[in-house]
Amino acid sequence: MKIISSRDNRYIKDCIKLKMRKYRDITGLFVIEGKRMMEELIACPDLKIRHVFIEESVANDYDLEVFNSEVFLINSKLMAEISDTDNPQGILAVVEQPIWNKENLKKDASVLVLLDGITDPGNMGTIIRTSWVFNVDGVLLTSGCVDPYSHKVVRSTMGGILNIPIFRNITISDIEDLTAANFSLLGSTVNDAKKYYEYDFTIPTIIIIGSEGQGMSSSLAKRCHDLITIPINPNADSLNAGVACGIILSEVLRQRDD
Amino acid sequence: MKIISSRDNRYIKDCIKLKMRKYRDITGLFVIEGKRMMEELIACPDLKIRHVFIEESVANDYDLEVFNSEVFLINSKLMAEISDTDNPQGILAVVEQPIWNKENLKKDASVLVLLDGITDPGNMGTIIRTSWVFNVDGVLLTSGCVDPYSHKVVRSTMGGILNIPIFRNITISDIEDLTAANFSLLGSTVNDAKKYYEYDFTIPTIIIIGSEGQGMSSSLAKRCHDLITIPINPNADSLNAGVACGIILSEVLRQRDD
Repeated sequence: MKIISSRDNRYIKDCIKLKMRKYRDITGLFVIEGKRMMEELIACPDLKIRHVFIEESVANDYDLEVFNSEVFLINSKLMAEISDTDNPQGILAVVEQPIWNKENLKKDASVLVLLDGITDPGNMGTIIRTSWVFNVDGVLLTSGCVDPYSHKVVRSTMGGILNIPIFRNITISDIEDLTAANFSLLGSTVNDAKKYYEYDFTIPTIIIIGSEGQGMSSSLAKRCHDLITIPINPNADSLNAGVACGIILSEVLRQRDD
Repeated sequence: MKIISSRDNRYIKDCIKLKMRKYRDITGLFVIEGKRMMEELIACPDLKIRHVFIEESVANDYDLEVFNSEVFLINSKLMAEISDTDNPQGILAVVEQPIWNKENLKKDASVLVLLDGITDPGNMGTIIRTSWVFNVDGVLLTSGCVDPYSHKVVRSTMGGILNIPIFRNITISDIEDLTAANFSLLGSTVNDAKKYYEYDFTIPTIIIIGSEGQGMSSSLAKRCHDLITIPINPNADSLNAGVACGIILSEVLRQRDD
C-alpha cells in the first residue's frame, strides 16, 4: 500500500478531474465511494478497478487483496477533495466503465427501459436502481440524458449501476433494430390510453420513460406500438418519473411471476 | 405595492429565518416559491398568504389582487437571499401552515399514509406528491420525520403539500385511536409476507412507510394488523421509499377503481 499525501499527486489530480463528465468520457472511468457501494463493487468481479483510495481509519475494515488493484493510503483532507459527498466514508475506487454489447440484447433481453432526455441525476439514479430491483435486462439512454456515471447518479443507483447493463447514445436506428427483432415499443402518456395493467408485459418490450417536463420526444412517440397511462387523481400534478417507472416495472414482474 | 431594498428590512430578515425549522415551528409559517408552485397556491383559496415578494421582471405576469395579501417589490439580490434555490423564479410567498383536524380522519378518511422516521427531504416530498396523485386522504408523520414545511420538501411535493392534509407528531396513541375507529394498520417488509396486490385495499387502511435504513419502528411493527411485501429480484438492493410508496398507492387506486 502506497501513501499519497500531496494534492499535486497525479492520481489525486486525475481523480478530482473525474467529477467532470468530459474526463469521464475521455478516460472511460468513473468513481464509486462509500461502504455500501464498495460491498456491491466487491460482489461484481467482472468490473475492473483501476485503484482504490483509503483512509487509515477504515483500512482495517477491508481485505485489500479483493480489490485486485493498487491501493493508496490518503488522509481525510485528500479524501474530502476527491469525494463528491459532504461526509466521505473513507474509501473510494476508480473503476472502468463496463462496455456492454448491444447485439446481445436482441437474443437475451426481454424487458428494456429507455430513458428519453432524463436530465435529473436523482431521477436517473432511482430509475437505474429500480430497473435492477425489477429484473430489467438493460437501460438504454438517449443522448440528451445526464451522464449515468456522474457521481450523483452512481450514488443514487445504490449499486444498480454496477449490476445492470447501461447503453448510452441510443439512436432511433438502434430502436428500429430492436423493434425489427420483435421488441414492442411502449410509450406512456398522461392522456387517455390503455391502463398500464391492461398491457401484456409478457412480450418483449421497450418501456420509454420521458422527462418530467417534456415527456417523450416526438421521434419516439410516433414509433410507439402501444401507449399506456397510469390512472391518477385528475386534479393532481403528474407523477415523479422514478415513481412512474417503479409502478410500471412492478407490473412487469407481477405479470411474469404469475 | 411597497418596495423593499434593504436586507435589514424586517420582512426580509424574517423570511430568511424561515429557512430554519425552529422559526417555521415558532411562527407556523412556511415559504413557497417559483411559478409552478404559485399557480398551485392561487388554486388553493383556503390557504392564508401572509405576504408575497416579487421581482419587477415578473410582476406583470401576475394579477397581484389574487394573493389577497401585501406584495413587496424586491430586487434580484434580495430574492437570492430569501430563496432556497440556485435559480429563483422571481416570486416567493410566505404562507400560514394549514391546521387540520385529526378528528375528521375517523369519519372522512379511508386511506392514510404514515411516514415513520423519513429523514430525507426528497423522499418525503416525493411521497407527499405521490399521495396527492393517488387520492390519499392524509399523510401522518411520526416525530422523527424531517419537517414537511422545509423548503426542499415543499419544492419536491410539486404542490402536493398545499393539497393534502398533513398531520405531524403522530403518536402511538393517535394510531390506536384510528385503529379503534376501524382502520387496519398495514406494515411493509422485505421478508416473506403477503404480496402487496393480495391485500384488500378497499378497507380503511393506514399504510406505514418506514425509513430506508431502519424500516418501521418496533412499536408500530408490533401493532400491525397485516404485513405486505413488494416482490423484487432477490440479488438487488431494496427499493427507494418513494418508489415503494408509489407502487402500493397505485394498487390502492386500482382496486378502488375496479
